[in-house]
Amino acid sequence: MATLKDIGLSAAINILSAFVFLVAFAILRLQPFNDRVYFPKWYLKGLRNSPRHAGAAVRKFVNLDYRSYVRFLNWMPAAMKMPEPELIDHAGLDSAVYLRIYFLGLKIFVPIAVLAFAVLVPVNWTNNYLEELYRGNPKLTYSDIDKLSISNIPSESHRFWAHLMMAYAITFWTCYILYKEYELIATMRLHFLASEQRRPDQFTVLVRNVPPDPDEPVSELVEHFFLVNHPDNYLTHQVVHNANTLASMIKKKKKLRNRLDYYELKYSRNQSKRPTTKTGFLGLWGEKVDAIEFYTVEIDKMSNEIEKERERTTNNPKSIMPAAFVSFKTRWGAAVCAQTQQTRNPTIWLTEWAPEPRDVYWQNLAIPFVSLTIRKLIMFVAFFFLTFFFMIPIAFVQSLANIEGIEKAAPFLKPVIELSFIKSFIQGFLPGIALKIFLIVLPAILMLMSKIEGYTAISSLERRSASRYYFFLLINVFLGSIIIGAAFEQLDTFLNLSANDIPKTIGVAIPMKATFFITYIMVDGWAGVAGEILRLKPLIIFHLKNSFLVRTERDREEAMDPGSLGFNEGEPQIQLYFLLGLVYAVVTPILLPFIVVFFGLAFLVYRHQIINVYNQEYESAAAFWPDVHARVITALIISQVLLMGLLSTKRAASSTPFLLALPVLTIFFYRYCKNRFEPTFKRYPLQEAMMKDTLERAREPNLNLKGYLQNAYIHPVFKGEDDDENYEITKEWEQGGLVPTKRQSRRNTPLPSKYSGSSSPSLPEVIQEQT
Amino acid sequence: MATLKDIGLSAAINILSAFVFLVAFAILRLQPFNDRVYFPKWYLKGLRNSPRHAGAAVRKFVNLDYRSYVRFLNWMPAAMKMPEPELIDHAGLDSAVYLRIYFLGLKIFVPIAVLAFAVLVPVNWTNNYLEELYRGNPKLTYSDIDKLSISNIPSESHRFWAHLMMAYAITFWTCYILYKEYELIATMRLHFLASEQRRPDQFTVLVRNVPPDPDEPVSELVEHFFLVNHPDNYLTHQVVHNANTLASMIKKKKKLRNRLDYYELKYSRNQSKRPTTKTGFLGLWGEKVDAIEFYTVEIDKMSNEIEKERERTTNNPKSIMPAAFVSFKTRWGAAVCAQTQQTRNPTIWLTEWAPEPRDVYWQNLAIPFVSLTIRKLIMFVAFFFLTFFFMIPIAFVQSLANIEGIEKAAPFLKPVIELSFIKSFIQGFLPGIALKIFLIVLPAILMLMSKIEGYTAISSLERRSASRYYFFLLINVFLGSIIIGAAFEQLDTFLNLSANDIPKTIGVAIPMKATFFITYIMVDGWAGVAGEILRLKPLIIFHLKNSFLVRTERDREEAMDPGSLGFNEGEPQIQLYFLLGLVYAVVTPILLPFIVVFFGLAFLVYRHQIINVYNQEYESAAAFWPDVHARVITALIISQVLLMGLLSTKRAASSTPFLLALPVLTIFFYRYCKNRFEPTFKRYPLQEAMMKDTLERAREPNLNLKGYLQNAYIHPVFKGEDDDENYEITKEWEQGGLVPTKRQSRRNTPLPSKYSGSSSPSLPEVIQEQT
Repeated sequence: MATLKDIGLSAAINILSAFVFLVAFAILRLQPFNDRVYFPKWYLKGLRNSPRHAGAAVRKFVNLDYRSYVRFLNWMPAAMKMPEPELIDHAGLDSAVYLRIYFLGLKIFVPIAVLAFAVLVPVNWTNNYLEELYRGNPKLTYSDIDKLSISNIPSESHRFWAHLMMAYAITFWTCYILYKEYELIATMRLHFLASEQRRPDQFTVLVRNVPPDPDEPVSELVEHFFLVNHPDNYLTHQVVHNANTLASMIKKKKKLRNRLDYYELKYSRNQSKRPTTKTGFLGLWGEKVDAIEFYTVEIDKMSNEIEKERERTTNNPKSIMPAAFVSFKTRWGAAVCAQTQQTRNPTIWLTEWAPEPRDVYWQNLAIPFVSLTIRKLIMFVAFFFLTFFFMIPIAFVQSLANIEGIEKAAPFLKPVIELSFIKSFIQGFLPGIALKIFLIVLPAILMLMSKIEGYTAISSLERRSASRYYFFLLINVFLGSIIIGAAFEQLDTFLNLSANDIPKTIGVAIPMKATFFITYIMVDGWAGVAGEILRLKPLIIFHLKNSFLVRTERDREEAMDPGSLGFNEGEPQIQLYFLLGLVYAVVTPILLPFIVVFFGLAFLVYRHQIINVYNQEYESAAAFWPDVHARVITALIISQVLLMGLLSTKRAASSTPFLLALPVLTIFFYRYCKNRFEPTFKRYPLQEAMMKDTLERAREPNLNLKGYLQNAYIHPVFKGEDDDENYEITKEWEQGGLVPTKRQSRRNTPLPSKYSGSSSPSLPEVIQEQT
Repeated sequence: MATLKDIGLSAAINILSAFVFLVAFAILRLQPFNDRVYFPKWYLKGLRNSPRHAGAAVRKFVNLDYRSYVRFLNWMPAAMKMPEPELIDHAGLDSAVYLRIYFLGLKIFVPIAVLAFAVLVPVNWTNNYLEELYRGNPKLTYSDIDKLSISNIPSESHRFWAHLMMAYAITFWTCYILYKEYELIATMRLHFLASEQRRPDQFTVLVRNVPPDPDEPVSELVEHFFLVNHPDNYLTHQVVHNANTLASMIKKKKKLRNRLDYYELKYSRNQSKRPTTKTGFLGLWGEKVDAIEFYTVEIDKMSNEIEKERERTTNNPKSIMPAAFVSFKTRWGAAVCAQTQQTRNPTIWLTEWAPEPRDVYWQNLAIPFVSLTIRKLIMFVAFFFLTFFFMIPIAFVQSLANIEGIEKAAPFLKPVIELSFIKSFIQGFLPGIALKIFLIVLPAILMLMSKIEGYTAISSLERRSASRYYFFLLINVFLGSIIIGAAFEQLDTFLNLSANDIPKTIGVAIPMKATFFITYIMVDGWAGVAGEILRLKPLIIFHLKNSFLVRTERDREEAMDPGSLGFNEGEPQIQLYFLLGLVYAVVTPILLPFIVVFFGLAFLVYRHQIINVYNQEYESAAAFWPDVHARVITALIISQVLLMGLLSTKRAASSTPFLLALPVLTIFFYRYCKNRFEPTFKRYPLQEAMMKDTLERAREPNLNLKGYLQNAYIHPVFKGEDDDENYEITKEWEQGGLVPTKRQSRRNTPLPSKYSGSSSPSLPEVIQEQT
């Protein structure tokens, strides 16, 4: 039982470490040679170039301007300055709405924390229950934290009415905020979808499970089907090719081209000596040849092969998958087709909104309907075992990976291992390593499972993985920390507990775990978030790559690794804080300020990262919000049920029945919201589509839509012969759609902008101070 | 513990009573004066007239032809003879598919019964476990039934593998049959929807929650909205009036008209005396006046008032509800509109398929969206209390309704009550009567609850009520019989039992209840079904009405009361038999033949009733099948879980884990079927619509669709001024849509029929023998 002092000490340590991270970040990011690590977003947008301009060589790498160090925390207000509409233009709606999750946390927990401190802390503190309880037992101690929590209220006390009222207040407040937020985000989504830009996915529908036809190839079949069934709206279509071989060949060619660039660069610097290479693996052995000649020939060879493969892929009917992107003359036509059933058999000619081109997960487009159910079944079983029994193989690996095991397997290592400090290191380190590796790769495993399940868009893959990751965290982190024991032991316990006893068992344990979770929030939340802004791993990797591997400018571009938000990993972790906050709000309100600090800090940090670092790979227009909403509701219901369990053990029998209404009301609130808002995230209203169509017809009567849509949904490998695919698409995307941002780096030649007439009033300091 | 002999005796009694019912029916239905009770369907179709033709007066009432009595069971093959397509024409798809539920029962349980008798009965019978168990205790006895059941297998026996395999076989067989059936019924539905007839609901969409507009009345608003958003497809619309006042006035006028008819008939028979009536209540007191004159004046007055009210309803904008039936030029247009979201706000301009005109539940058309969620919440809570706590008020009433209570309330009755036989009658009868009344009115209560929830079609009201009634039966009949005790006591028990213990507790009790359920099947199933065909209640009521109340031919028509299938009451009861069959198939296979006999008998009886008696009020094109399917799956899962519980108490630990896979597989089978087939019952494929449209355009290029649809969805009270509403609609419906049946009563002048060229080969004996 930690005292308030312990918690204070721990808080001080964590605040200090977070502060150290922040200071380190503030200093590192000002150094020009780190520029690509801390501002990759601007490089990718083409609004910032490498700092190779005038000045001494040393200034290329180190910032010597003392003034910029004085204002080292200025990134915080700077991160706040970009207004939300501009943020949406700059980083996409997904990122902007992702930030609103943190903001939602603040909006929910700040008033709750104030109220809880005003009401519950005095109610709890003014009891002497724990004091009296432990007076007889000098051995047992209680902490100040416990004195502030519900544990300090004697059984059958009338004071529990305060907690009950508080539970109602929290539920209503949370629901109110959730409702407002859902409403707002639905509006933002609709506004985003209806905004001025024309986008290929507005006109396009993904058709899957095109039935095989002996007489017609897929392409003609699709054309005929839609000409017949959507005669007034059908415009064009693109079949989907199985281009995985081609993709790998293009990747190989790109590597060769990179080598060639490197040697040409080398030669241009030192023209006295033609560079040589060896033909074998990685240029390490084999015949010695002239490098430039060798790679030129290799590239030519590869180009020919690629041309052949492309020919083969394009013309071979077997490489055409039974799926197609069908485009319509109007948004209305696409909206109609995406929302209706096409044929009697609802498992063929499946239509759905096309994801935006960047978001398509090409490999999954050809999975037949029957196999989908089987894949889902297998993944369901696999996930069940993964969640509840993952400890078994890990414990097995741990039992193997001890000193004796290593000595047995590799006797020659014995003298080294027996050294005492190495021995103690191994003994301290090894047992945990299997678990740690597992937890690190877990999101990747879950992502793989989602891919096997056959989702066709990267965004839906991430949403699916996120919901599984949340469940895993709920079982193994939240419940696992409260009820000590592996998940499969818990499963057994819960199967043997009655429906009444489960909330009681967990509820009783909850107040005792408050200090543990406070520490967890500080370590994982505070320090973790501060660590995120430092980007230690990308920083190190970038400099390593830059020193040893980077051969060309393109390599440097790739070494930047801006990363992205990683919804599948990040969001479930945020949800854990919602869960902790809601569960402890009534039980141990002292935990709330820690949650609030987490949300505030994370909001700031991620806003900064989204503006300057992350490069979102796709745009789903906040399609994930219904999931976020549902998970906060889940946390709310869990908190209500656990409070019921806790209160029933306190023999506050007269108040417990009043709590019963809360989960019922919350579930109905959830259903209401689902009916009210979810269609906005699944469907596209016809009125919007019609309005947009009419407007467009009036403005651009001679628009060549067919030309615009012709190649929008072509497999990335067919786009450009020799270029990095992501890069290609991103560029095309920006040309096609996004409004040029208002912000410009001063280091950069100002780009002509649509808004160039208006000087940019929101030019953030983050850029100003770097000059 | 009943022995086989006891069961045999009980079976004999029940078979005998069923046989008596059947013989009584066979005799009664041959009497001409019962003709309207046993063949009302033919009267309603206009294919049969009252037996007023040649012959002696006595032959009008009694059938003296001895030959027809010889073949008195001939209705059975006759009921089987009508082929299914003709049955669909004759009674609608709903009725035909309803029959298939019984047929499904046969298809599932006949092979299972054969297999169980071949495998499980020998496996169980050849053990001596019970014999040995009870050898020491001569007081305890076991029955032969138990010797045939799983109870006779000793714990930890390897014979449980046979039961395990059987559980797998049953699951796979049931799923296979369910799949085939779902597929067939989906095809039937699509074929029915796509069949030749043009129906108004194919072109029409019901629009609800039209938002209020200060500038435009509802009608114009609807027109503008759809002209803008469905410009190529919109044809016309009809607003919905709140015509409840008008409806009651028309009803009143109809009564007056009936009286007038009666007195005119009376006068025409006996012209010597003009009939008189009194002006007061029911013509019992008040001034004496000339009846014909009085009613003529009254009707005229009423007509004027109705005209005024109609004027008021039509023109007063306040009587127009914010809902409309919008019709489109093509089926394609309607299919598109019904399946898409119209505006940003998904709670206004809600579109759904219009139910067919007969099926509309007019009162609910104006409920706003927000109130729907609240209504659902209230009904959810109400249903919860109804299911689990209905015994409390009933027990209270029972405690009041005893002899002492009556004597206290009405002391003057004391001498009568004190008579011993009356006393014993009251004591025996009173306690049960409250419960019985409750059970009789329960379906009506559930129907009322569904109405409050705001469904807009009678068919969906019935489906909703059915699912609640099923839940009620599951809890209070199935579980209530196994675990004795009121539902709220059970609820408490289950909340205090662990997830492991619930199936154990129920599973162990199941074999002991086999004889009870066998008796239940015989009494409620066999005798109940045989009683249904006798139609004792309608028979008595018809003759009573005919003797005392019937004044005119129209009255006689109404006295027929053909009834209808009553999906909301009948289907959940059938499902109880599915549940019993599946639960006991492995545990006590001796129960299966009783189930098979029930399904066979019920199939025959209801086929006969549907052909000759019931007059279905609406046609939902088998929209209820997904519910039926889901409930059979529920029964299957319950059976699997209970078997798992039972086996785990038998310490057949090695086999129990293999059962775990069954519910998982079954749930995934359910999900697969849901994806594969349910859209067919919710949506209308565009290909079908387009095909039908194209065909129609080619055949009838000059069709005046607007004229056809103009008044299709007008409130029944606006249809005809002075006629029975149901009658009106039914007639119009038949003229508009149904293909004239091939069958004709010989008593009737043959109607001209489309198929008159082909002689009717399937003319059933049921009609032949009546000549």
